[in-house]
Amino acid sequence: MTTFALSPEVNARASATLARAARTVAPSLDVAVGRLSPALQGAVQHHLAGGGKRVRAALALLSAAAAGAGEEAGVAGAVAIELIHNFSLIHDDIIDGDEERRHRSTVWSEYGIGPAIIVGDALATLALQVLLEEPTAERVRAARCLVDATQLMIAGQADDMAFESRRTITVAECLDMELGKTSALLSCAVSLGAILAGAPDPTVEALAEYGSHLGTAFQAIDDVLGIWGEPARTGKPVGSDLSQHKKTLPVTIALSRGDDNHPELFRLLNGDLPPADMERARVLIEQSGAREETIALADDHLHLALAALDRVPLAVEPKDDLVAIARFVTERDR
Amino acid sequence: MTTFALSPEVNARASATLARAARTVAPSLDVAVGRLSPALQGAVQHHLAGGGKRVRAALALLSAAAAGAGEEAGVAGAVAIELIHNFSLIHDDIIDGDEERRHRSTVWSEYGIGPAIIVGDALATLALQVLLEEPTAERVRAARCLVDATQLMIAGQADDMAFESRRTITVAECLDMELGKTSALLSCAVSLGAILAGAPDPTVEALAEYGSHLGTAFQAIDDVLGIWGEPARTGKPVGSDLSQHKKTLPVTIALSRGDDNHPELFRLLNGDLPPADMERARVLIEQSGAREETIALADDHLHLALAALDRVPLAVEPKDDLVAIARFVTERDR
Repeated sequence: MTTFALSPEVNARASATLARAARTVAPSLDVAVGRLSPALQGAVQHHLAGGGKRVRAALALLSAAAAGAGEEAGVAGAVAIELIHNFSLIHDDIIDGDEERRHRSTVWSEYGIGPAIIVGDALATLALQVLLEEPTAERVRAARCLVDATQLMIAGQADDMAFESRRTITVAECLDMELGKTSALLSCAVSLGAILAGAPDPTVEALAEYGSHLGTAFQAIDDVLGIWGEPARTGKPVGSDLSQHKKTLPVTIALSRGDDNHPELFRLLNGDLPPADMERARVLIEQSGAREETIALADDHLHLALAALDRVPLAVEPKDDLVAIARFVTERDR
Repeated sequence: MTTFALSPEVNARASATLARAARTVAPSLDVAVGRLSPALQGAVQHHLAGGGKRVRAALALLSAAAAGAGEEAGVAGAVAIELIHNFSLIHDDIIDGDEERRHRSTVWSEYGIGPAIIVGDALATLALQVLLEEPTAERVRAARCLVDATQLMIAGQADDMAFESRRTITVAECLDMELGKTSALLSCAVSLGAILAGAPDPTVEALAEYGSHLGTAFQAIDDVLGIWGEPARTGKPVGSDLSQHKKTLPVTIALSRGDDNHPELFRLLNGDLPPADMERARVLIEQSGAREETIALADDHLHLALAALDRVPLAVEPKDDLVAIARFVTERDR
């Protein structure tokens, strides 16, 4: 079913790259966060202690290195993109009413909605402060990349929310929403290092395209895990995407089928979804072929992401790291 | 009691200036907001239809003109600062649980907390997009001014929230909180036009100082109106600052007195404040002299704001407009 099987070597390479990126970015991230109001430190530290894989930070660092500069040229970009990502997580958790993330209480459930709003706002603002303080003329282009991507992400979140109260959406609408919600920021992450390093346009564009396709592939797999993944590994309650009436790719694809199961699935997905109905909806979505199609779509976009990297000359080691990370983040437990 | 009586001429001049600024900034603000996701337009339009005096936009335009450029040099700054201001209003209304603003339902009470969070995020991001798209080298300094002021404002909001659960704070802590909550953004507003116009540092600094003192004066008067103002004119429910245990200047000053009424006032302000207690608290705060002292503090800062304008050469008409606006916004119905 999957095109790429994740070899132990690729897995080890990606894990080592992510761990190295986390170490590289940690001191600068700590310094940045330390500038925030003392009144916010408790909630910020609570959230950041939850960790996260620092995928976006790694992409920003590798972006600089792939463009021929040292990873240090991408550090401010890595810090900024992590801050924006965490701002979006904190606000998303309020919006979705999620009480847990990475097996820890979310900021709003621990500190209240007001503080969680403010903490998110502070992190988003801090991201721009960090980037605009970079002593290079490229900071304007980098900051524009970041705010444009953030606005696309917000539009994706707005659609995601609006779609919850719609009974059906088209697959194109779903892909477009996910392009905003996930791809925009990943694309920006893997552009930022190259931008800050002053790389030529074709290099920045190829990296951005890699990030965009990677985002679609990543989100497709995330959607699959949101329905069939084990809560112990995803860190989310079982079936929360379905019970929140999220119009994810598997759901949208399944509902786009005109097959015999459609009326039953449609009725189930628009209901309250007690456990028996949840299980039945899961079976019907799988029977429609939507799970396989979503995984195939992820594989297509993974191919496109990797192909983009071959379009321009890139430093060999960082490029291999980008390949490993792409495979790693789209192969998670599917 | 008040140092400045607002003459009909000053009132007319300020009103005309604000109306002109609102007209100047409206087309660019509409274009900017029109770029946001269709899913957000309803909530954004609902909020913006509530109007507002566009004080910050006027300050940004006058800033450019006072520095010797045309007001058009300040338009992007005026749009950006209005967007940041409205982002903060929308998020503040969620945090404070305020259901009405300017006699209309707030975004969260009309559309829900999730959409209100997203709309605020979108406006804040849009502000930076607008400013960073300005085709001038000064955009970096302008954007840094805006994000630094936004971060100070957020810190002020965080303190404001944290202080609600503290029984007492010092007057210095209160002033510091209000400096962040209000002065930072006004100071930035009246710097932005001059920054974008490429004005020399002393000009930008004098305008920033005017804005900072104006912010403190404005907030002090706002605090007085929050306790003694008529709801029909303030647009806020009577005594909402007291019932939310807001540590405003009059409250902080009154509680800092060691007089005979202190134990009763302390008990009242930390209680539920039914109408009779609210009225009694109001009387006790007034008897402590805190109302007069807050107004005197506002007058002091108004003087300091106007004195800052005399420190550098400024274009005559815009300077007179800045003087009129300063008197206008600190004389409201007190």
